[in-house]
Amino acid sequence: MKWVYIEDIAEYLDQEVELRGWVYNTRSSGKIRFILLRDGTGIIQSTLFSPEKDSPLFQKFDQLTQESSIIVQGQVQKESRAPGGYEISIQDIQIIQIAQDYPITPKQHGTPFLMENRHLWLRSQKQHAILQIRTELIKAIRDFFDGRGFRNLDTPILTPSACEGTTTLFETEYFDQKAYLSQSGQLYNEATAMAFGKVYCFGPTFRAEKSKTRKHLMEFWMVEPEVAFATLKDIIKLGEELVVFIIGRILEKNKKELDILERDTQPLEKVQKPFPRITYEQALHNLKEHGSQIQWGDDFGAPEETLLSKIYDSPVCITHFPAQTKAFYMQPDEENPEVVLGLDVLASEGFGEIIGGGQRIHDLKLLEKKVSEYNLPRKDYEWYLDLRKYGSTPHSGFGLGIERTLAWICNIKHIRETLPFPRLLHKLYP
Amino acid sequence: MKWVYIEDIAEYLDQEVELRGWVYNTRSSGKIRFILLRDGTGIIQSTLFSPEKDSPLFQKFDQLTQESSIIVQGQVQKESRAPGGYEISIQDIQIIQIAQDYPITPKQHGTPFLMENRHLWLRSQKQHAILQIRTELIKAIRDFFDGRGFRNLDTPILTPSACEGTTTLFETEYFDQKAYLSQSGQLYNEATAMAFGKVYCFGPTFRAEKSKTRKHLMEFWMVEPEVAFATLKDIIKLGEELVVFIIGRILEKNKKELDILERDTQPLEKVQKPFPRITYEQALHNLKEHGSQIQWGDDFGAPEETLLSKIYDSPVCITHFPAQTKAFYMQPDEENPEVVLGLDVLASEGFGEIIGGGQRIHDLKLLEKKVSEYNLPRKDYEWYLDLRKYGSTPHSGFGLGIERTLAWICNIKHIRETLPFPRLLHKLYP
Repeated sequence: MKWVYIEDIAEYLDQEVELRGWVYNTRSSGKIRFILLRDGTGIIQSTLFSPEKDSPLFQKFDQLTQESSIIVQGQVQKESRAPGGYEISIQDIQIIQIAQDYPITPKQHGTPFLMENRHLWLRSQKQHAILQIRTELIKAIRDFFDGRGFRNLDTPILTPSACEGTTTLFETEYFDQKAYLSQSGQLYNEATAMAFGKVYCFGPTFRAEKSKTRKHLMEFWMVEPEVAFATLKDIIKLGEELVVFIIGRILEKNKKELDILERDTQPLEKVQKPFPRITYEQALHNLKEHGSQIQWGDDFGAPEETLLSKIYDSPVCITHFPAQTKAFYMQPDEENPEVVLGLDVLASEGFGEIIGGGQRIHDLKLLEKKVSEYNLPRKDYEWYLDLRKYGSTPHSGFGLGIERTLAWICNIKHIRETLPFPRLLHKLYP
Repeated sequence: MKWVYIEDIAEYLDQEVELRGWVYNTRSSGKIRFILLRDGTGIIQSTLFSPEKDSPLFQKFDQLTQESSIIVQGQVQKESRAPGGYEISIQDIQIIQIAQDYPITPKQHGTPFLMENRHLWLRSQKQHAILQIRTELIKAIRDFFDGRGFRNLDTPILTPSACEGTTTLFETEYFDQKAYLSQSGQLYNEATAMAFGKVYCFGPTFRAEKSKTRKHLMEFWMVEPEVAFATLKDIIKLGEELVVFIIGRILEKNKKELDILERDTQPLEKVQKPFPRITYEQALHNLKEHGSQIQWGDDFGAPEETLLSKIYDSPVCITHFPAQTKAFYMQPDEENPEVVLGLDVLASEGFGEIIGGGQRIHDLKLLEKKVSEYNLPRKDYEWYLDLRKYGSTPHSGFGLGIERTLAWICNIKHIRETLPFPRLLHKLYP
C-alpha cells in the first residue's frame, strides 16, 4: 500500500493508503474509536469501527498513548465534520512504539520546562505552526532574490577580524591564529557584488551579547543582499519590496498556521509600499513630541523603536543617522557629513528593527581614514580596501534578521520560539 | 534611461539602455573602439564609432583600464559576430573610477598569488563560472527538497557536544561553558524529523582537520535531509534521485559555464539511476581484485574511492560498512550485526564521496549501550535518547557536501575554488 503524507491526502480520495505518524490524541464514542494522527505535515482524524469492544483492532487502540508511533492503513474519505475535511477509515494498525509518559501533556507547562524539552516541544501545534511559517519565510526570501537575478554566494563564518565591533565576538583557535565567528557577511558580500553585480548571502550569524532580552539570540539567521552601483534610494526600494513580498506570501500560504497562532492578520494585510520614510532627525522630533527624552546622537533603543512603529502604524524606513551611531563603512551624506546614508526598517506593531543597512563608502581615501579612525587593523582590511582601488562604485545593501521578522509575522513575544534550537545566554541545551 | 543587466539584454533589442559594470577588455580597429563590459551577470561587446580620433568619447575610451568602473548608455543591437549575439552601440560613457594596475592580468599567475587576491580573482571568467554553477546547484538542491514536501529547518552551529568525534572540533567559550562548532546537523535533524516528518538543514559545517589535501576545507556547506519512518532502502533512493536531479538541472541551466570550464559533459550525461549498489564486502572484493591491499575493517581512503569510481564508471552506492568505521548512531544490520546500515555515494570520475548517511538506531536500549561504549557524555545526549523514548521509529538521512559535489560537476581538482572564500589550513585571509 502506498505511503502518503497527510498534506497530500486530498489526492487519494476513496483510495487505500498507508500513513505513518504519531498519536496526537484519542477518544472513544460507542462503537467508534478516533485517533488524531499527526505525521509532521498535518493532523488527520482516523476512525475504527467495530461492533465488538475487544476486537483485535480495538485491543491495539487501547494500548495507544500520546506520541506513540504507528503505521495505519485505511481508506481516505471525505468527512466535513473532521478537521481538514478528510478522514481515514482504518483497516489496520501497526504499532511501532508505545510512548510511556510523554512529558508534554495537554495541561499547561512553564516555559523553562518546555525549553528544556525543546526537542519534543517542536511537535506541539503552536511551535509546529511557527516553524512551518519559518520554512515558508525562508523560501519566500530566496524566491524574491532568485527571481530578481541575485546570486546566492555564501560568506565565511570563520573570519580573521570583526565587522561590527569586537566586544561581542565568539572567538576560536584557528591553528596558529585566532578566528572569530562572523557577525555579518557584508564585507565579503561587497567583494562578491563587484564580481556578480547583485548577490546575497543567507546563513547563521553570531553575537556574544550578554543580553537576556526577548529580542536577543546568540546565533541567528540573516539574509544580506548587496548591489553594486546601487545607492541608498535603490536599496530602500529593494527592502520595501522584499518585506511586502514576504508578508504577501505568508498571508497566501500560511493561513492555517496563522489561525493556529490566533494571529490577527489585519496589521499584516496593511503592509504596503512605500513605507513612511523619515530621517533620524525627523524620527527624533516625533519621539520628543511623544515625550521621549532622547538626544541627537543617541542610538534608538527598544522603547524608541516601539514608539515609532506605533506612531506610523506601518513599517517605517529611517535614514540619515548620526555617523557615530553607525559602522565605519557607512557613506556620509554629501550635504551633511555628520550623518550617514544608513537605513533601518522597523516592523509595525512595535516589533522593532528588522532591516539594517545602507550605502557603503566607495572612496578609497575616505575609507582608509575611517579604518584608521576606528582603530581597525589595517592589514586585515587590505582586501576590503582593494575593492575601492579596482573599479570602485557606489554600492549598497542590508541585512534582514529572520527571527525578528518571524516574531513579527507570528506576533510572538519571545524570539526563542522562532527557530528550532535557540541559543540564548547560558543556554546551549538541547 | 533604464538600468538593465547584461543577462536580460535580449529583452531590450533596439532600445536604449544603461549598463553599469567594469571594463573587461578593450581594443581598437580603425574608427571603431570596442569595450568588453562585464556587469556580473554577463559580458557584452560595446562599440564606439567616430570618424575623429580625438572625439570626446574616444578620449574617455583612451583612459579605460582593466576593471575600471563605468556606466554606458547605448542601443541594444543584434550582432551575430559578438559573443552572446548582442552588442551595445554606445552613445555615452560615464567613468566612475579608473582602476590603476589591477593585479590580475591576462598573463598566468600562480595559485598562491590568486588565493591572496581571492576577493578580486572572483571576477575572472573561470572562477565566476564555477560560482555561478554553485548558485544554481544550491537552488537545485532546495527545489528538489521543497518540491518533495521537505521542511527546511536549520540546526544550531553552537553545540555542547560532538557529533562525529571530538578531535576535529573548533571550540569557543560560551559564557560559562564550552561550545563547539557543529560538524553536522544530523542529531538535531532527527528531532525535527519526528516533529515534521521530512526535513533538511542546509548550512555551514566545520572540521578542524590538520589536512592540506585537495579535498579538505575547514568550513564547508552541507545539505542534510532526514526522514522519519524511512529505512536505508528509502534513503538510497532519495540520494540517487537528488544526484540525478541536480546533475540534470546543471546540464540544463549552465551550458555556458560548463563550456567556459571546458567540462566534458559526457560523464555527467551518463549519471542515471539506479546507481550500482554494492556492499562494503563487495567493494572490498573488487578493490582486492584490482590490486588494493585494503583489509576488512579499514575505512576507504581517497585511493580506494577513486579506484571504485573508475571500476563502475558511474556514481556508486556503498552500504553495510563494518560498525567500527562508522558513527555510534548507525543501525546494525539485523542479519549481521558486525555491519551497519550506512550509505556512502561516490561520485564518478574519481571524485570520491559526496554523500554519507544511513539508517539511525531507533531502539533505546541499543542506543544507550552505544553512547556508553563510545564514551559520550550521557547528559549531553539525554534529549537525543528521548527521541527513542517517545514515538521512536526507524529513520534515515544523509549529508551531501556542496563543495565536493561542485568540484565533481565542474571537474576541478582543488576544492578551494568551489566557494567564494575558502577556509584552508592556516588560511583565513581574505
